[in-house]
Amino acid sequence: MNVAQIKKVVLAFSGGLDTSVILKWLQDTYRCEVVTFTADIGQGEEVEPARAKAKQLGVREIFIDDLREEFVRDFVFPMFRANTLYEGEYLLGTSIARPLIAKRQIEIARETGADAVSHGATGKGNDQVRFELGYYALQPDIRVIAPWREWDLTSREKLLKYAEQHGIPVEMKKKEGSPYSMDANLLHISYEGRILEDPAQEPEESMWRWSVSPEKAPDSPEYLDLEFRQGDIVALDGEELSPARLLARLNELGGKHGIGRLDLVENRYVGMKSRGCYETPGGTIMLRAHRAMESITLDREVAHLKDELMPRYAELIYNGYWWSPERRMMQTMIDASQAHVNGWVRVKLYKGNVIVVGRDSKTDSLFDPHIATFEDDQGAYNQMDAAGFIKLNALRMRIAANLRNRK
Amino acid sequence: MNVAQIKKVVLAFSGGLDTSVILKWLQDTYRCEVVTFTADIGQGEEVEPARAKAKQLGVREIFIDDLREEFVRDFVFPMFRANTLYEGEYLLGTSIARPLIAKRQIEIARETGADAVSHGATGKGNDQVRFELGYYALQPDIRVIAPWREWDLTSREKLLKYAEQHGIPVEMKKKEGSPYSMDANLLHISYEGRILEDPAQEPEESMWRWSVSPEKAPDSPEYLDLEFRQGDIVALDGEELSPARLLARLNELGGKHGIGRLDLVENRYVGMKSRGCYETPGGTIMLRAHRAMESITLDREVAHLKDELMPRYAELIYNGYWWSPERRMMQTMIDASQAHVNGWVRVKLYKGNVIVVGRDSKTDSLFDPHIATFEDDQGAYNQMDAAGFIKLNALRMRIAANLRNRK
Amino acid sequence: MNVAQIKKVVLAFSGGLDTSVILKWLQDTYRCEVVTFTADIGQGEEVEPARAKAKQLGVREIFIDDLREEFVRDFVFPMFRANTLYEGEYLLGTSIARPLIAKRQIEIARETGADAVSHGATGKGNDQVRFELGYYALQPDIRVIAPWREWDLTSREKLLKYAEQHGIPVEMKKKEGSPYSMDANLLHISYEGRILEDPAQEPEESMWRWSVSPEKAPDSPEYLDLEFRQGDIVALDGEELSPARLLARLNELGGKHGIGRLDLVENRYVGMKSRGCYETPGGTIMLRAHRAMESITLDREVAHLKDELMPRYAELIYNGYWWSPERRMMQTMIDASQAHVNGWVRVKLYKGNVIVVGRDSKTDSLFDPHIATFEDDQGAYNQMDAAGFIKLNALRMRIAANLRNRK
Amino acid sequence: MNVAQIKKVVLAFSGGLDTSVILKWLQDTYRCEVVTFTADIGQGEEVEPARAKAKQLGVREIFIDDLREEFVRDFVFPMFRANTLYEGEYLLGTSIARPLIAKRQIEIARETGADAVSHGATGKGNDQVRFELGYYALQPDIRVIAPWREWDLTSREKLLKYAEQHGIPVEMKKKEGSPYSMDANLLHISYEGRILEDPAQEPEESMWRWSVSPEKAPDSPEYLDLEFRQGDIVALDGEELSPARLLARLNELGGKHGIGRLDLVENRYVGMKSRGCYETPGGTIMLRAHRAMESITLDREVAHLKDELMPRYAELIYNGYWWSPERRMMQTMIDASQAHVNGWVRVKLYKGNVIVVGRDSKTDSLFDPHIATFEDDQGAYNQMDAAGFIKLNALRMRIAANLRNRK
Repeated sequence: MNVAQIKKVVLAFSGGLDTSVILKWLQDTYRCEVVTFTADIGQGEEVEPARAKAKQLGVREIFIDDLREEFVRDFVFPMFRANTLYEGEYLLGTSIARPLIAKRQIEIARETGADAVSHGATGKGNDQVRFELGYYALQPDIRVIAPWREWDLTSREKLLKYAEQHGIPVEMKKKEGSPYSMDANLLHISYEGRILEDPAQEPEESMWRWSVSPEKAPDSPEYLDLEFRQGDIVALDGEELSPARLLARLNELGGKHGIGRLDLVENRYVGMKSRGCYETPGGTIMLRAHRAMESITLDREVAHLKDELMPRYAELIYNGYWWSPERRMMQTMIDASQAHVNGWVRVKLYKGNVIVVGRDSKTDSLFDPHIATFEDDQGAYNQMDAAGFIKLNALRMRIAANLRNRK
Repeated sequence: MNVAQIKKVVLAFSGGLDTSVILKWLQDTYRCEVVTFTADIGQGEEVEPARAKAKQLGVREIFIDDLREEFVRDFVFPMFRANTLYEGEYLLGTSIARPLIAKRQIEIARETGADAVSHGATGKGNDQVRFELGYYALQPDIRVIAPWREWDLTSREKLLKYAEQHGIPVEMKKKEGSPYSMDANLLHISYEGRILEDPAQEPEESMWRWSVSPEKAPDSPEYLDLEFRQGDIVALDGEELSPARLLARLNELGGKHGIGRLDLVENRYVGMKSRGCYETPGGTIMLRAHRAMESITLDREVAHLKDELMPRYAELIYNGYWWSPERRMMQTMIDASQAHVNGWVRVKLYKGNVIVVGRDSKTDSLFDPHIATFEDDQGAYNQMDAAGFIKLNALRMRIAANLRNRK
Repeated sequence: MNVAQIKKVVLAFSGGLDTSVILKWLQDTYRCEVVTFTADIGQGEEVEPARAKAKQLGVREIFIDDLREEFVRDFVFPMFRANTLYEGEYLLGTSIARPLIAKRQIEIARETGADAVSHGATGKGNDQVRFELGYYALQPDIRVIAPWREWDLTSREKLLKYAEQHGIPVEMKKKEGSPYSMDANLLHISYEGRILEDPAQEPEESMWRWSVSPEKAPDSPEYLDLEFRQGDIVALDGEELSPARLLARLNELGGKHGIGRLDLVENRYVGMKSRGCYETPGGTIMLRAHRAMESITLDREVAHLKDELMPRYAELIYNGYWWSPERRMMQTMIDASQAHVNGWVRVKLYKGNVIVVGRDSKTDSLFDPHIATFEDDQGAYNQMDAAGFIKLNALRMRIAANLRNRK
Repeated sequence: MNVAQIKKVVLAFSGGLDTSVILKWLQDTYRCEVVTFTADIGQGEEVEPARAKAKQLGVREIFIDDLREEFVRDFVFPMFRANTLYEGEYLLGTSIARPLIAKRQIEIARETGADAVSHGATGKGNDQVRFELGYYALQPDIRVIAPWREWDLTSREKLLKYAEQHGIPVEMKKKEGSPYSMDANLLHISYEGRILEDPAQEPEESMWRWSVSPEKAPDSPEYLDLEFRQGDIVALDGEELSPARLLARLNELGGKHGIGRLDLVENRYVGMKSRGCYETPGGTIMLRAHRAMESITLDREVAHLKDELMPRYAELIYNGYWWSPERRMMQTMIDASQAHVNGWVRVKLYKGNVIVVGRDSKTDSLFDPHIATFEDDQGAYNQMDAAGFIKLNALRMRIAANLRNRK
């Protein structure tokens, strides 16, 4: 560890206890200047208090950015164009936010002349990978400091003691009362740790923060119309909304109806299985609606190819390769597929269910109820065609069966 | 059409109006003997009445088979080992039954010395393909008669008139009162046609036959323990059940709780989009539970490879290629992956939701809550390893970024 | 067959016996006007004689186009960007020319107000599919006439007799003396039929037309420098050449050195296996050189993803889906990957061998011989990183082995 | 580094200078007993001299195994069943030997009660990964010592000095005179380093050791018949041979005819590009012949699925995942596909070329030259079937084109 070399480091700073300790530790250990960067990506906490805390700890360059629109427009929406699910279930709420933080940290490093960046992710999780692959891909010679992998503050107690010894106000502690490790942004909130570490145990109802339980959701369903333009939702019930406002509204609606809870065991990139619980109310609605929109506007083979590549695309994002050339290459294809994904979808929200009840596209529907008429007039469908279609598709199997029967 | 050549034809015969007309039409048109085959695959209707109807129409060789156990054990279960979904949503309830019917028809053709087989599927759907690819793959020189592609009974009215003219009792008509084209077996019931042909319209509540609506489902959730052995469910709440009995029980439970309704637009193999509604209560529970079971017992890369191949596997089954060499080859891999998929999963059923609330495996869990301890003692996890892991995974992107920055 | 409806048909007309008979047959059978279209795609025969023949048969609208540059620039080059091989060996020389012919025929149909198109491909091969999928994708209501599937001229003798009876000069017969069914364009020449129908037999040396045998090739090797720009070859030995001229020059050089012969059994889309022999001298050089160029300019994961998708891309082209949305979607991704594929490759041509002996890129080489130096200075490579890299990649397998060992 | 803990280590020991220095260094650094393991995998050097050298260095447990048959039978042959090529060209000669060495080392560790294993691969290459992933997968708690990543003998000079200081005879140095880093086994010999580090430079002719240049190969071709059983070659020109003897014979023949040289830039798993030259004479013949054998015995879709999965299978082996569950799972599928790959292939060897000139299978050929006759009699092929086949395959594109045209 070449401690001496660092001059200035940009820290992803939440203002909470952990990153406050990190801030102090960086100053003491590396004897370098620390620049803080705090982003509002919809985590639902004020970001301005971070300014005071940073100042209090002697920081001179403080960056506080509202990245909510950029987050949804340039990260969440492109990912949803692929109907992305990791391991069949997880909507990648944490994974998709990291590349944006990494990118902005690197931008700030350039603006401020910093030679290093730092984050508060531990050495056992995925987030360290997501941050650092982003840093390196965007600024290959950047120095990365991951305090959790370096220091000896290996327990909560040691951390608190360090805070006390260095005059870091412990009341800074966030998420008071929650025994879980949590992460939140406009797309989701996640829970890990404690009793969740036994996958045989059901989580306590009190854990969930964004949604009511299906049991406590309203007894009446609510209908919602979503309008799509090139694969993205642009309006709810006829009202055009910016990406971030739209997702926030979907979160409200989904949360109200008990939608989007997930409880699963996932495979981390670093090699272990991990239990996580997630609330993704708006994302869950978006995914169902997007598939429904594609079902009438996308060509069959395009849709199938997307489906076959989706697990790999999801894996890339989960593993932290958003800024890789292969993710970018896949994105060109995914985006190209969305040109005709225009129209509207109606969903019914009810006690945990997102039920698609209608879909149409004035301009791009490939569903033709008059295919019968179409056929008669144009010769587009002739039932006898099916005989030839089947015969030729069967030919290779018939030849093989003939051979095997002869033997 | 070489009408003269047919001597004996095995007809897939439901006993309903359509296949009764087909029976008569085959006798008249081909002047051949007709053997009827009626299978109980859990469609929920008596099969014995078909015997009397066949006799009445002069059939001498009548086959009525209870194929429920074979259906679930050798078709449904293998398919669920792959977490199979067509186009992200459809559980393939109709598709998976056709290969069994085809196989049994060919067996009967061999037993009775028949030189042809016939079915009641139309020329615009997928089922004709599924039946006929099965026939040809198993008996390459069989003659196939698909009356709907041959005759001129192109409307309901003409069909009824033909029935009257030929003394076929019209009270035979099944599914009285339903305006929908339906198909049912132990895995699902499907609805097509009529008002469903407008994908913008929500189906009427009265259409659904197997499940109550989530709104009418019980207000209290029900917990259910499922035990897995090599990827298949073998017991419910501790009670071992045969495959068919198990699926029947899951259908009851799912139906009671409003689980497993689907409303979608799918891409048919013959080239058109089609709107279908499905109820798959038991299958929906099985799928969620199987993924949960795999989540703790399957290796990450095995799971990901399965996920990437699943859409293609689903497409093969949807398109009718169950008996193809490529489906069989994929099945060997899927089955091999299930050796360690043993343990139990607990689900909570509530108003349309299947919520996984626990999973464990005494023998095969790869989830290790003591990985921390494991690490410290064995060196299995050292946080510093992550630094090297990330550095080498980033190397190619760093080299590229260095190059691009130089330019 | 609705013979009466056709008013004007655009025929892909080579001027040879077969298409001359087709021309006459169309006039007589459909009593419609025939427009001829003859394209120079580098087949190595004069196209102008087709004009006289068409006139002689009463054609008033005659189209003769030199499509060589378009063929190589818009079809051959894009395909080579993917390192396309069908079934591991075939360079798709015939497949890639059909979509261009189909496109031009449809354009002419629009220009001349024709309501039908016609081609001379038989009902057992792939070319009918390639032509017709192109027609339908570009002009969905076009009428397609495939005489070989309609008429009763099922043998050579009947064809000749028809020609005589209708005053079609039999000396028109092309490829005199060749017992093979052949197809040629700037990318390749193919041979099928006759003694090739026994895959156990070696083809006669006299069959091959474009290349000498390796045995008869020069005893001295020849070196060749190829310059790439965005994945396409733009210059040979420093001389910039248009796409068609470049490929023609590579064909000369390859043919001279016995390069590019293939003898294989392929799987046709219509379900049968077929033996074909091919000469693709220039294409064989291009493929080897392109892979070499990519080897130093393409990111590893981009290259691997391309390799995994290539067989499907090749299948699409082989099966005739050039104009499909899924091929176009894949092309956007392939093309995006080529932005940095710039530089030069040196090959050595010698008696059937294309040996890559050097490759470099001033602007885009990701190969860094000074990686050692790079590492020491920048921390980019530290051998100890490998330990962590391996440890975490092994973790899932260690956990599993621990579990299995305990049992 | 927990130096104190190691009691006994099993070293993969070639008897050369490097592993002799490692042996001594292990004894001195870890103060542990060293067990040597030397394998004959066809590298072409005597293995017995390693015994004397080990004894001389005080080793008491010395293992010298002839693994040639196991190597070819259980590693090379299974890999060739998949037509495996890494990055389109490399036949994985080094990669496929490492898992066998790793497996045998672990077996010896168990037999001798050793708690560690060690190898001589550096920290920048793939081999360390291949060895260690094998160790960990087979024995998760094994200690791994990779001296090149630990010691400070970072240059050739330091290594030689260490040898002198510790009385290790420097004449032990192997591959005298070669400036290249080499690796050899029955499948191939590889060259890296020195002037090869400039990919723009052609290698010197003197580098190649196993094959003559095409220029110096015989002026007369040689024909060779290869007999396949379930995808493996079992006989040459009618003579049954064991796997290792067969591959040795193919190496002789290939080497004599200048076959199997490769010069390429590959992407290492650790993130850098690397230039390597390879001679794989027998493997090159095997690959061409195996594809030819499959071309007449394998179903089209089975072959295509194998082709699509091959790049990933190759990547797994290249990256060292032979013992992973995903490689094993894929192998079950690959092996299942080979049941009918029986018959013979004739190749012509001439100056670097392997030309397939015939292939046949008495029992399993799916090539039917009499498909015409077959059709007429059985209705298996009717040219009119193609019209329906094309129509339905085109339908989705027609519907889309209709829609786009309307707009």
